Amino acid sequence: MTNRNYHLVIVGYGGMGSYHGKLLKENQNINVVGTYDILEERRAASLADGYKVYESLAAVLADDSVDFVLIATPNDVHKEIAVAALNAKKHVICEKPVTIYSEELIEIMQAAKMNDRAFIVHQNRRWDEDFLTIKKVYDELIIGDVFHIESRVQGANGIPGDWRHQKAYGGGMLLDWGVHLLDQLLFMIDSKITSVYANLSYILGNEVDDGFQVFITFENGINSLVEVGTTNFIQLPRWYAKGTTGTAVIHDWDINGKIVTQNRGVEVEAPKPIKAGQGLTKTMAPPSEKAVSTSDLPKVDKTMESFYDNVISVVEGKAEPIIKNEEVLRVLQLMETIFKSAETNEVVKDFDRVMDGKILF
Amino acid sequence: MTNRNYHLVIVGYGGMGSYHGKLLKENQNINVVGTYDILEERRAASLADGYKVYESLAAVLADDSVDFVLIATPNDVHKEIAVAALNAKKHVICEKPVTIYSEELIEIMQAAKMNDRAFIVHQNRRWDEDFLTIKKVYDELIIGDVFHIESRVQGANGIPGDWRHQKAYGGGMLLDWGVHLLDQLLFMIDSKITSVYANLSYILGNEVDDGFQVFITFENGINSLVEVGTTNFIQLPRWYAKGTTGTAVIHDWDINGKIVTQNRGVEVEAPKPIKAGQGLTKTMAPPSEKAVSTSDLPKVDKTMESFYDNVISVVEGKAEPIIKNEEVLRVLQLMETIFKSAETNEVVKDFDRVMDGKILF
Repeated sequence: MTNRNYHLVIVGYGGMGSYHGKLLKENQNINVVGTYDILEERRAASLADGYKVYESLAAVLADDSVDFVLIATPNDVHKEIAVAALNAKKHVICEKPVTIYSEELIEIMQAAKMNDRAFIVHQNRRWDEDFLTIKKVYDELIIGDVFHIESRVQGANGIPGDWRHQKAYGGGMLLDWGVHLLDQLLFMIDSKITSVYANLSYILGNEVDDGFQVFITFENGINSLVEVGTTNFIQLPRWYAKGTTGTAVIHDWDINGKIVTQNRGVEVEAPKPIKAGQGLTKTMAPPSEKAVSTSDLPKVDKTMESFYDNVISVVEGKAEPIIKNEEVLRVLQLMETIFKSAETNEVVKDFDRVMDGKILF
Repeated sequence: MTNRNYHLVIVGYGGMGSYHGKLLKENQNINVVGTYDILEERRAASLADGYKVYESLAAVLADDSVDFVLIATPNDVHKEIAVAALNAKKHVICEKPVTIYSEELIEIMQAAKMNDRAFIVHQNRRWDEDFLTIKKVYDELIIGDVFHIESRVQGANGIPGDWRHQKAYGGGMLLDWGVHLLDQLLFMIDSKITSVYANLSYILGNEVDDGFQVFITFENGINSLVEVGTTNFIQLPRWYAKGTTGTAVIHDWDINGKIVTQNRGVEVEAPKPIKAGQGLTKTMAPPSEKAVSTSDLPKVDKTMESFYDNVISVVEGKAEPIIKNEEVLRVLQLMETIFKSAETNEVVKDFDRVMDGKILF
């Protein structure tokens, strides 16, 4: 493996840490040379997986052969580790949510700038096929101009059983899954947010949220509903989008779904009223057959550089990061705004204004 | 038909007026003796359907043989006709939305009280089977205590093409379909409303709303989302409800749907992580097979008196109205609150407090 140029150490060898280890086995540029974890069982797992175990974070940072530190610890210690690693002139890859508070990310961004090292957050779900499919529908106006988008992830297994139950570690579903769905939405929609209204769910009795619904309106007229649930025994579609000429639905991660669009310029029969409960309705009757066309979802072209390829391109000065820290910061500040909206049960309208002020550093 | 005790005249012989004519053909107590409409074509339709045509509203009200006036005109003239009919000692049945403004309903209620006549609004969708099914799920705790309900009606045909396009006549989808969905919700959930947040859609370019999403929270902890759309080429389920032990879905007016509940007291395997896009998830994996049970939706017992039977029982002093005017007033005030919330893009929290003050008359 010595032909791989870059050496990486995984800090925090739990579920996500070992997942990165597996991902990187195929990588042509990056060699995982070891791990560091505070738990004995994780050290044992690392050895079993063939990775050298460092005795301390300091030992990792003191090792001049290490180019990258990958942080996959609980969220509350991301900042401390990231800043130390950057100051030790390492490049840093960090799991999401990057930090619990946006101020911490600003500190990290300052450390990255000062040390001239890359800091890149693993917002891996920008590469998810379901997201790239809806993004293609959106970008290519396949259902006309999209004006309403709903993004949902619903499970029935509650909050995963470890530090994600605890507020101090940055637990809860807004930080765990919300960060992905919000990151995808803001990556897709290039417009200022004009209002945020959120409702967090605490039905499972944890100190952290077990799900949420948030309504976000954008300056370009798009309304969106983003939802995460962990008490949903039946799932609503992963994506639902309305455009000026049609509707798109993506049911699941296997990209089941369809597009239904209006036929333009066709002489179309008026819909026939249907019996609906105790009344008739023409408004809610299905359109006549000639009025609409059903088609498959578009196939995604995988033209975007992969996460790790982009990391290397950034480090070698060949490309801009796909995941920009300013974007990650905006999502973090949006989550803070969501917490605030839910706590006060108020609409927050000054989010993107305040943010513009905040990121000047 | 002379064995039918009560004589009724339909005022406004359009779509809903003639629909009532058909409904009443089977009725054992009520005889439709004529109609009144300002349009020549509707008078002709009435004659063709076998109903005598009155020359004026005054002529209807002066006819001592008439017991009931049924109002199925555009919404803006409901009040004027209702008050005149009540003052002429007629009982009045009125189409929904009863009036555009709640003050008008208060005037009508005062006229009904003063003249000791019944005034009953045709909120017929309290008898819809889909609604009675979800109400049974709710009432009988079939999925435990329900804490989240979504009620949607989605079509793709735009706003129906007549006065419903115009604000002055009380057009728009909040007043047309919203009134039903809100009436059902408040009829089912016996709790004060603590907050209302709404977004109206004007995507079709009409002066009235072509749909809306409204979030309503209740004092008993229930959150709800009520939605009407006329630009939805793909439909989300009619009802979606989450309870403490399961989830219910009703897809359509044919009552397709299911219940999925958690199996209690069973030793259950942990869910297995699934590949979801670019990552693994245990949180969003399907529960293991032993962990849940799927069952059919409950069958509805049709024990509630029918709309017209209840009207007669009320008039004969044998029963309370199923559709109470105070309930109708609350829904009307809720719609005013929804307009206000949407216009200001703010959460309204004092709705049920203000209402308590308002209905004291």
